[in-house]
Amino acid sequence: MVINMSPGYTDEQLQHIIDRVKECGFTPHVTRGTERAIVAAVGSGGNRTAIEALQAAAGVDSVVPIAHPFKLVSRQVRGERTRVYVRDVCIGGTEAVVIAGPCSVESREQLLATARGVKAAGASMLRGGAYKPRTSPYDFQGLGLEALKLLREAREETGLPVVTEVMSTNDIEAICEHADMLQVGARNMQNYDLLRHLAECSKPVLLKRGPSATVKEWLLAAEYLLAGGNQNVVLCERGIKTFETETRNTLDLAAVALARELSHLPVLADPSHGTGRRDLIASASRAALAIGADGLIIEVHPCPERALSDGAQSLNLEEFSRLVQGLSAPIRAVAMPAASVPTGDETRMNGHSVYSV
Amino acid sequence: MVINMSPGYTDEQLQHIIDRVKECGFTPHVTRGTERAIVAAVGSGGNRTAIEALQAAAGVDSVVPIAHPFKLVSRQVRGERTRVYVRDVCIGGTEAVVIAGPCSVESREQLLATARGVKAAGASMLRGGAYKPRTSPYDFQGLGLEALKLLREAREETGLPVVTEVMSTNDIEAICEHADMLQVGARNMQNYDLLRHLAECSKPVLLKRGPSATVKEWLLAAEYLLAGGNQNVVLCERGIKTFETETRNTLDLAAVALARELSHLPVLADPSHGTGRRDLIASASRAALAIGADGLIIEVHPCPERALSDGAQSLNLEEFSRLVQGLSAPIRAVAMPAASVPTGDETRMNGHSVYSV
Amino acid sequence: MVINMSPGYTDEQLQHIIDRVKECGFTPHVTRGTERAIVAAVGSGGNRTAIEALQAAAGVDSVVPIAHPFKLVSRQVRGERTRVYVRDVCIGGTEAVVIAGPCSVESREQLLATARGVKAAGASMLRGGAYKPRTSPYDFQGLGLEALKLLREAREETGLPVVTEVMSTNDIEAICEHADMLQVGARNMQNYDLLRHLAECSKPVLLKRGPSATVKEWLLAAEYLLAGGNQNVVLCERGIKTFETETRNTLDLAAVALARELSHLPVLADPSHGTGRRDLIASASRAALAIGADGLIIEVHPCPERALSDGAQSLNLEEFSRLVQGLSAPIRAVAMPAASVPTGDETRMNGHSVYSV
Amino acid sequence: MVINMSPGYTDEQLQHIIDRVKECGFTPHVTRGTERAIVAAVGSGGNRTAIEALQAAAGVDSVVPIAHPFKLVSRQVRGERTRVYVRDVCIGGTEAVVIAGPCSVESREQLLATARGVKAAGASMLRGGAYKPRTSPYDFQGLGLEALKLLREAREETGLPVVTEVMSTNDIEAICEHADMLQVGARNMQNYDLLRHLAECSKPVLLKRGPSATVKEWLLAAEYLLAGGNQNVVLCERGIKTFETETRNTLDLAAVALARELSHLPVLADPSHGTGRRDLIASASRAALAIGADGLIIEVHPCPERALSDGAQSLNLEEFSRLVQGLSAPIRAVAMPAASVPTGDETRMNGHSVYSV
Repeated sequence: MVINMSPGYTDEQLQHIIDRVKECGFTPHVTRGTERAIVAAVGSGGNRTAIEALQAAAGVDSVVPIAHPFKLVSRQVRGERTRVYVRDVCIGGTEAVVIAGPCSVESREQLLATARGVKAAGASMLRGGAYKPRTSPYDFQGLGLEALKLLREAREETGLPVVTEVMSTNDIEAICEHADMLQVGARNMQNYDLLRHLAECSKPVLLKRGPSATVKEWLLAAEYLLAGGNQNVVLCERGIKTFETETRNTLDLAAVALARELSHLPVLADPSHGTGRRDLIASASRAALAIGADGLIIEVHPCPERALSDGAQSLNLEEFSRLVQGLSAPIRAVAMPAASVPTGDETRMNGHSVYSV
Repeated sequence: MVINMSPGYTDEQLQHIIDRVKECGFTPHVTRGTERAIVAAVGSGGNRTAIEALQAAAGVDSVVPIAHPFKLVSRQVRGERTRVYVRDVCIGGTEAVVIAGPCSVESREQLLATARGVKAAGASMLRGGAYKPRTSPYDFQGLGLEALKLLREAREETGLPVVTEVMSTNDIEAICEHADMLQVGARNMQNYDLLRHLAECSKPVLLKRGPSATVKEWLLAAEYLLAGGNQNVVLCERGIKTFETETRNTLDLAAVALARELSHLPVLADPSHGTGRRDLIASASRAALAIGADGLIIEVHPCPERALSDGAQSLNLEEFSRLVQGLSAPIRAVAMPAASVPTGDETRMNGHSVYSV
Repeated sequence: MVINMSPGYTDEQLQHIIDRVKECGFTPHVTRGTERAIVAAVGSGGNRTAIEALQAAAGVDSVVPIAHPFKLVSRQVRGERTRVYVRDVCIGGTEAVVIAGPCSVESREQLLATARGVKAAGASMLRGGAYKPRTSPYDFQGLGLEALKLLREAREETGLPVVTEVMSTNDIEAICEHADMLQVGARNMQNYDLLRHLAECSKPVLLKRGPSATVKEWLLAAEYLLAGGNQNVVLCERGIKTFETETRNTLDLAAVALARELSHLPVLADPSHGTGRRDLIASASRAALAIGADGLIIEVHPCPERALSDGAQSLNLEEFSRLVQGLSAPIRAVAMPAASVPTGDETRMNGHSVYSV
Repeated sequence: MVINMSPGYTDEQLQHIIDRVKECGFTPHVTRGTERAIVAAVGSGGNRTAIEALQAAAGVDSVVPIAHPFKLVSRQVRGERTRVYVRDVCIGGTEAVVIAGPCSVESREQLLATARGVKAAGASMLRGGAYKPRTSPYDFQGLGLEALKLLREAREETGLPVVTEVMSTNDIEAICEHADMLQVGARNMQNYDLLRHLAECSKPVLLKRGPSATVKEWLLAAEYLLAGGNQNVVLCERGIKTFETETRNTLDLAAVALARELSHLPVLADPSHGTGRRDLIASASRAALAIGADGLIIEVHPCPERALSDGAQSLNLEEFSRLVQGLSAPIRAVAMPAASVPTGDETRMNGHSVYSV
């Protein structure tokens, strides 16, 4: 942390800051300029938050953090990339995964038709909402436990591991019993009570980025999971809120590359929510893999115009099948020598291919 | 809802939309232009979501909602403004309320000193965090139950009703026992599990706007509370996320006026989080009341530079006292005939004054 | 500037940075931590940009600016607030100014009716567009020179000084001949060619904040004018682009207070563009003055529903008259002792009143 | 356009709207619901802006546009994609182009070294700033005419066509004499005076998206060029302003796909400004081509840490060379049957390859 004194600070104010830095467990290093002075708080064992509060001390202009605030999720802490296994599916390995399925589980017929279809098209995992976070209380809220049972049946029939969203700590146990991976939705990314409970559960977690979360805030949300004991965390970029209204969200693909650079965790992309437009999902999916995403999560419905949620951004089975075919070629064809690429991330693209196609 | 057909739509596609609109419980009214056609879905008993999904139907360019999606929170539903009573404090009446206190309850000494100070300065309610949502798991997470007991003690001593944030459904019971109002923090505005539980609790709820929530989404979150049975809801604007970095958030004061126009619920403003800068809090407070806010919530700490959270945006007791004095004059001096103002909202400013000063 | 070395930097890299800092005309002060090192570049005569480029040097994690980048606009440079005179109207003095008029000058009749009406209601200056920046080339582009002549006629009749937007350096001469103040529109805030030409013109300039400009970028745009020789600059906040769609822009009122704190220049607010909604303009105007704005600029049209531009956000003459009446009371009634207010800005509100009412 | 009447509208108000719609040259079609009514304004010859102003009429809740506001840039108007030729380089054809060069032309030595280097690495065009839009007036403003001469010399030596930014209408002639393509920078996207002059010039124009421009506003800026007579327009996405601070801008890659879907104009991506981070440029470049960009524009400097502008986001020659090599493989290797892809855009990826490698 660097404490930047205001122009016109007094010696007394500077001394107070020096004393406070020591009190907080750091060593103060003072640099005096002509108008200003800065005090660097050096050391690692001190109380970082206490230094931040010095912003409120007299004579202080600003307190500037230097180091990143996260630890366990950081790539500096862990040399190799994390691989998260959801049953036999490896996320973060050499092959990209494609997770597909309906926004909401609506009926046995709808779910099984989708599961069979996405499996045939090459998906590696099944998604489907049992508990739905809906902006309006009057919208369809999900089938709950009944949906969980249907998801389990779909997995038993197709072999596709299942991921579903958890909205309440009370549902964790039931979801763990029926599903293979728990998704934290974008709106709950900073629901710390939920994160703390999921940190103690034995299943892997898919952590979506909040619509207004910076990459740092997203990684710190993941830090809650790791610090609490759950190492099996997969990040997922799903678009952020901006002024653009032609797309539902703005898919921040650079954040996929950045999260993979700052962290060792796998990162997926969700072009369905990220664009909200069926006509952009296929090309956004290719771009996501090109930038290094470890996989995709795509909304698929047998008849999107009758979907109880997110119909406008759901592909039908035929569209999804073409999307997967469109993906496999560019990914598998890459044969670029590792030595020729500027950043570490790129070398791993070599072996990327759509899982189990 | 208006369904806008793409240029080049076919008669068959149009007929399909007409049929689907009927199937969804609405009456279709078709207008054919030279290139396009629009189908208005008329009626109130139909399935709104099902119409939205028609965006995915062939030949459809867009589906445009016409009416607002909320009901119980709407001013159209309820003629007069709602007044929410927190013990003897009325929020939404003729006098503006000022809620003040520390970001976090840190100790008995800190809390009682703050409570006495803000009471003396003219605050009408006490705030203080017992359970803290912190971006990093390594930051101070609040004293929990111990803090709740201290808040209760502070109320017993000062008579100030107490509001504190609830982060977990498991804590609702304990908070209801010790505090007078439950705050839903900005990050939990769309934590629907929490909202559903709070809808069934007997205490009033302070619902902060999420940092990336539109006014509509915010009102729909309140709709969850009203639809679930809790009519005692107070809204609070606390700044949204934008590209501006000089302030912590961008305080959207027009949203205060807009929320009061669209809804009958009282609306507070939080200039502490809204600006994140001590030097802007006093002027932003005056502006908030001028635009029609029903009150303010302000972070106050006996020694901000030692605060365990939000020190940079906390006022000390003397600064807070001056702020309240600065407020009272412009508010009480208003003597503007109701007839002279263009919108309904403005007339009520007449009687606005700082509570209990 | 502080150069923050990456963890794992080498001694050679650090030495290179030290050498480069000297080469750029600064004195390097090195602080070594356990993992990192920081190099502070101290002094004022050096090449700031050259230090920034060191971000690209090996072993550097980030380069963090410490001081603000603006000079002449800064309040640190000039003790007292600037007053800008537009003929006999003083902007930045003890009285708030209200500038009003149509978005576009449409006809002699329309302009004169508006000018007379806003004068009667208490406006101190007239606005009116002759050259219009329109999103679409098919929209009304303004009457040009004809409009300038009408504006001049309106001033001669009413005595109200006139401000109008300049879009092209080729129009500066003609506008200077007919109008009293030149407005740089939000979309041209960073049109540096235009700013350089206006810096050399003898008339005062109204500089609107760009819809995506930070307060720093806005002040640096003003710096172009002052550095080029024009000291008569008035800033104007008119809303920024955010995700909120219920309002046309998000009026950033805290930026008004912040700009007045960082700079000695007067700052106006434009609630017409800032909200884009007629029902919010009156209350937003009151809030703008409460936060310390030196005045307002408001769109008024004799018949908004027939306006050739911005009809949806224009007040009619009666609404404008009520708005001004609603303003005068809270402003004039203030009688708050200077000693009782926390920040310097607030004391000046004492004498604020609507100009020439 | 659809005019949506407020609940509680009167028959008189509705009749007024019907009359006004006719007066504006459209045919009104009225649909009455239980609470509301909507009036569709049908026809193509009417005055669109006049309908928009009806938002200000009594009894009107909102006016909703149905059709897109652009004409000449629209894909509906022109069946095939536009190819823009800059000398012998075709933008928008089957091969992706790579434009590279320094942010600013700093010296003969710097420019020629860069031009030779990027040519050798496989670039198809040279970029270089002669006139620089800089946030601060104290930053390097470009070498002007001298830089234009150096760019011409670089083209003569390497054969690479040259693109450079135009900031002033006064410079258009000189730039046309020396350069092959004129760039409109992001801050000038809505500088309509500049657009009108460029519409009449004989050289192709590269139109960057403004940092807060929606895709619609961007296409309407291009519409100014086409409507004014210049058909040779290339769009360029370079990142938008959002709350994320880890990257300089948020590269909106979906906007590349969307602009290509709505318009027949070619679309490039600028990952240098789009991310502002050297470590993300290579992967963002791959993603841009994968989503369908017609090419890239990349900042390259022989020694980024000594660059007079944008050093932090400039690649050195070796890094650029590796980037181009990393691109060629995934692009050339694609051999995907046109029949297998869901949207029209994707088929053209087949033949995409880096130009002249």
